[in-house]
Amino acid sequence: MRHDQEGPPGDPLSGLLDQVRRSLRDLGGGAPASYIPELSRVDPDLFGLSLCALDGQVYGSGDTQVPFTVQSVSKPFVFALALADRGLEEVLTRVGAEPSGEAFNSIRLEPGTGRPPNPMVNAGAIVTTSLVAGDTPEARFDRILDGLSAFAARPLAVDEAVYASERATGDRNRALAYLMHNAGSLTGDVEDQLDVYFRQCSVLVTCDDLAVMHATLAAGGVNPVSGTRVVAPRHAQHVLAVMATCGMYDASGQWMLQVGMPAKSGVSGAIGVALPGQFGIGVFSPPLEEKGNSVRGIAACHLLSDQFGLHLMRASVPERRPMPPRSLDPAPLRSLRHRPRDQRAALEAHPDRIRVHVMQGDLDFATAEQTLRAARELPAAVGWFALDLTRVGRIEPVAADLLRALGENLRGRDVRMVLADPDQRQAMVHAADEFPDLGRALESCEDAFLTDLGIDPAAPVPLADCDLFGRVDPDLRAALADAFDTLRLADGDSVAPPARQLRERIVLWYVESGRLAVCADTAKAVPALRTWSAGPGAALTPADFPARIARRVLAERDTVCRTLTASGLVRLRALAPEAVAHLERAPLEGADTVDRPDAG
Amino acid sequence: MRHDQEGPPGDPLSGLLDQVRRSLRDLGGGAPASYIPELSRVDPDLFGLSLCALDGQVYGSGDTQVPFTVQSVSKPFVFALALADRGLEEVLTRVGAEPSGEAFNSIRLEPGTGRPPNPMVNAGAIVTTSLVAGDTPEARFDRILDGLSAFAARPLAVDEAVYASERATGDRNRALAYLMHNAGSLTGDVEDQLDVYFRQCSVLVTCDDLAVMHATLAAGGVNPVSGTRVVAPRHAQHVLAVMATCGMYDASGQWMLQVGMPAKSGVSGAIGVALPGQFGIGVFSPPLEEKGNSVRGIAACHLLSDQFGLHLMRASVPERRPMPPRSLDPAPLRSLRHRPRDQRAALEAHPDRIRVHVMQGDLDFATAEQTLRAARELPAAVGWFALDLTRVGRIEPVAADLLRALGENLRGRDVRMVLADPDQRQAMVHAADEFPDLGRALESCEDAFLTDLGIDPAAPVPLADCDLFGRVDPDLRAALADAFDTLRLADGDSVAPPARQLRERIVLWYVESGRLAVCADTAKAVPALRTWSAGPGAALTPADFPARIARRVLAERDTVCRTLTASGLVRLRALAPEAVAHLERAPLEGADTVDRPDAG
Repeated sequence: MRHDQEGPPGDPLSGLLDQVRRSLRDLGGGAPASYIPELSRVDPDLFGLSLCALDGQVYGSGDTQVPFTVQSVSKPFVFALALADRGLEEVLTRVGAEPSGEAFNSIRLEPGTGRPPNPMVNAGAIVTTSLVAGDTPEARFDRILDGLSAFAARPLAVDEAVYASERATGDRNRALAYLMHNAGSLTGDVEDQLDVYFRQCSVLVTCDDLAVMHATLAAGGVNPVSGTRVVAPRHAQHVLAVMATCGMYDASGQWMLQVGMPAKSGVSGAIGVALPGQFGIGVFSPPLEEKGNSVRGIAACHLLSDQFGLHLMRASVPERRPMPPRSLDPAPLRSLRHRPRDQRAALEAHPDRIRVHVMQGDLDFATAEQTLRAARELPAAVGWFALDLTRVGRIEPVAADLLRALGENLRGRDVRMVLADPDQRQAMVHAADEFPDLGRALESCEDAFLTDLGIDPAAPVPLADCDLFGRVDPDLRAALADAFDTLRLADGDSVAPPARQLRERIVLWYVESGRLAVCADTAKAVPALRTWSAGPGAALTPADFPARIARRVLAERDTVCRTLTASGLVRLRALAPEAVAHLERAPLEGADTVDRPDAG
Repeated sequence: MRHDQEGPPGDPLSGLLDQVRRSLRDLGGGAPASYIPELSRVDPDLFGLSLCALDGQVYGSGDTQVPFTVQSVSKPFVFALALADRGLEEVLTRVGAEPSGEAFNSIRLEPGTGRPPNPMVNAGAIVTTSLVAGDTPEARFDRILDGLSAFAARPLAVDEAVYASERATGDRNRALAYLMHNAGSLTGDVEDQLDVYFRQCSVLVTCDDLAVMHATLAAGGVNPVSGTRVVAPRHAQHVLAVMATCGMYDASGQWMLQVGMPAKSGVSGAIGVALPGQFGIGVFSPPLEEKGNSVRGIAACHLLSDQFGLHLMRASVPERRPMPPRSLDPAPLRSLRHRPRDQRAALEAHPDRIRVHVMQGDLDFATAEQTLRAARELPAAVGWFALDLTRVGRIEPVAADLLRALGENLRGRDVRMVLADPDQRQAMVHAADEFPDLGRALESCEDAFLTDLGIDPAAPVPLADCDLFGRVDPDLRAALADAFDTLRLADGDSVAPPARQLRERIVLWYVESGRLAVCADTAKAVPALRTWSAGPGAALTPADFPARIARRVLAERDTVCRTLTASGLVRLRALAPEAVAHLERAPLEGADTVDRPDAG
């Protein structure tokens, strides 16, 4: 019956679980429960440790697949089912949620209401079992078995021998049930209710099952293995809260003090642990200490909490926050849009109109608050506040709320909030415009600012009207423009790949209208791989094009490009050497529209 | 005495606190404590709500600066001081850490030890007060007053009238103290001990003070306003754990169920709340319900927890993780190093040797585990596993442990783990090489791989030995090379800025030895703004240089560059037009060394 499974060889996490288990394998003390023969006959050396991550991966060490009866570890899950069937309010009229400071079989009921103190002691669990939906005891137990199976992501069964023994020896539970029936907190036929309870305690699970069951609670009620929602997020939260204060009976306070993770132990030697948003753990080792908890199980939980810093009350505040959110200031951060000279001059003359704030890590209260502070200190000149969320992981609801409030607040100060978020999480809809990357967000701010100044950044700039050739006679300019070819691209078209450009020996691109942008060529790439873009009036050379990495140049709207080949350049040079010298500087200096009589 | 302060106008977070306070201002019920005249005389309409963020910013709404006596809200802080002076083990021999399920003035002591149940009820607090270091009652109280002041980041004082009343009416506390003295859990002179306790309860604080004090616990013991460490991180953690299970007396279980944040209330109508790693809150409103907690204070905590999703047991697992860690696969991700053709060919022939894994958000157990999974599925060909941490926020200890184990595990599989981390957090030292950005990490992997293949990527490639000019006679090649100038840069030197390059009309750069890289020109910029680099054999044109953004080109080691001006190009063209045509394609194609007899 001994399985000394050590997890997939070479897996570092299983390796760490192996270390924990090996370091405790020789820990002695305690004895298996002896109130029924089935439990006392167990091999005391069995020792399993399983962990289920919230992506459904199960890691294990030791006897992780040996079946044992779930006993009290069923209590949180049956409480969850009762919450699902009756709602918190109704359940709380029948059972409390206070730690009793007493043992698992405490007989104390609340004066006045007759409620047992909480669903984690036997009396409370008998009540929650009776609250699960079902017209008959059989229907109620079917619902419980189905529910436990859904938490475990596999069909579970009852150990009939244990069930028979439990029923035969359950005098104290029977006494509790009759007391509660007398007090009115337990209704219905007492023996029927007890029968369902004894059967529920006799359901067979493994260490792996417990890890998956607790991972389901840690994941807010969705089983990470099956993908099925078993209970609502708020009910998973309620269960974890009650486990946190009452899960370890009269040692719950010590447990929170020293281990700091919601947990539940059972008399067969199992302990289940759930860390919200992180994982579920199952430990199984039959010898119990005097309070009825697994000796090695408790030690394993202590070790895991200490060694990995998993305590819920651990303030994970580095002495110095490694990556605080920051405002890019005062360095004028500009988009990588190739712009004609007049647009660049306007942007350079007002470097303080657009402020960028970069955030990183998960957005919780603390990081969102730092953003509010940064926004409060914005100089009066700022008209656009671009929040870069491209490096952000999850966004907690409180952070979304604060940023939404910030967007509204800024609007009242005539500052427009703009978001760069490749996931388009739309957390802050109505408060800000959202773009898939910082480049596009910045371009949009710049375009809006230029428009405010009376410059239309999208207006076509015909080659014959631009100053690419310097101050030359309009007739010559028209002749020079004729040496260029015309390339018309529809929205979404790609410019020819580098190899073909090479063959065609194009030495200069000029954008007359529309827009080009360099984008990553693979859907799997990290976001924000769009680098530069180029609007009307921009001139580009082959080296602006990405020859060395798998990217492509796309038209982002219907675009007219003028291209010059090497041989065209030779012809131009013969025609007007000075104009060509000017032209050759263009990609460095940027082109500009020629002064026109109608321009301000 | 009424201060209807509403926080800095226009601040969105103060605005949210205002909303909470306004929505509860008309909530009636309850009455101020009446056991001493000083408390019963208070204005029942006073209502303040303060929040202190972990960067020390205090936000408030309402009567946040009205002084009141701290009463039981002192208990967690004096417990913290006792832990600092005696250590957890010694403190626990004198007071338990279990929720009693009884009221604040419960008289129940642990059978056998005589310990009061926990430091949050009066009996336990009298004991922890007696455990604070000091040879005399005066010295002990000075230590307590200094300690509370350090938690509040300002010098606090005692309300002498309240102190006198407390002492005069403290019969039940006196009884508790004598009972504990009899049981042996309270030592020393009982009246002296009580005197210190009554004085401690009479220390004057404001709502803002409570927010700062609790923020200090939430920050792991460092006061975020003063920057001073008040207690050790483990002691702050212990205090929060005991607040979580015992802080709200016989309603602690309900509190964890419905509010889910460690808290402590006091009879003057104050409630303090600390959310680990996030913030501290102080609420003040004198009318109390029957259990002795502030009616509006409790309602405000419920509202904040619900509205902002701040419950500790909330599993913050989005249905779909917005930004899962991901492996860039199978797209061959290459560094932006300009490399000669032979190196590029070698890298292109083995696209699967280097795998990049990008992580984002905070690194906790869950995200680290997903990285382990990705690493487990690496194809056999992979020799380098580059972990990109540039988008990661904080790294929890458990994540650092798992990644360290991964590094060791990979080494056993002949895979080298390489980290890109601009903060050089060195979390995984000894398990991996660390680089400040992904580009440098990738370059290092590529260089190591090329070295394995017998190619030395750092070996100088003299211009006369490269194929920049195509297949030309060695004599002509030497003559062509002579048309280039030589630019020697020491490690750290900058290449002239674009404007000067423009003046000099340099049209081509060729790196003979050393290395150039484009870096951001501002220390304040986001990390990883180093874009491309270029080693021996690389040829660059002006457009490779960053003309449009504030960056510069740096020599990263002693470097020899050969540069060609526009007029040099004209001379070359006359000499060998075909070679120049070849040369002009070089930046697109990359140069390569010429086949040499001694090359393999």
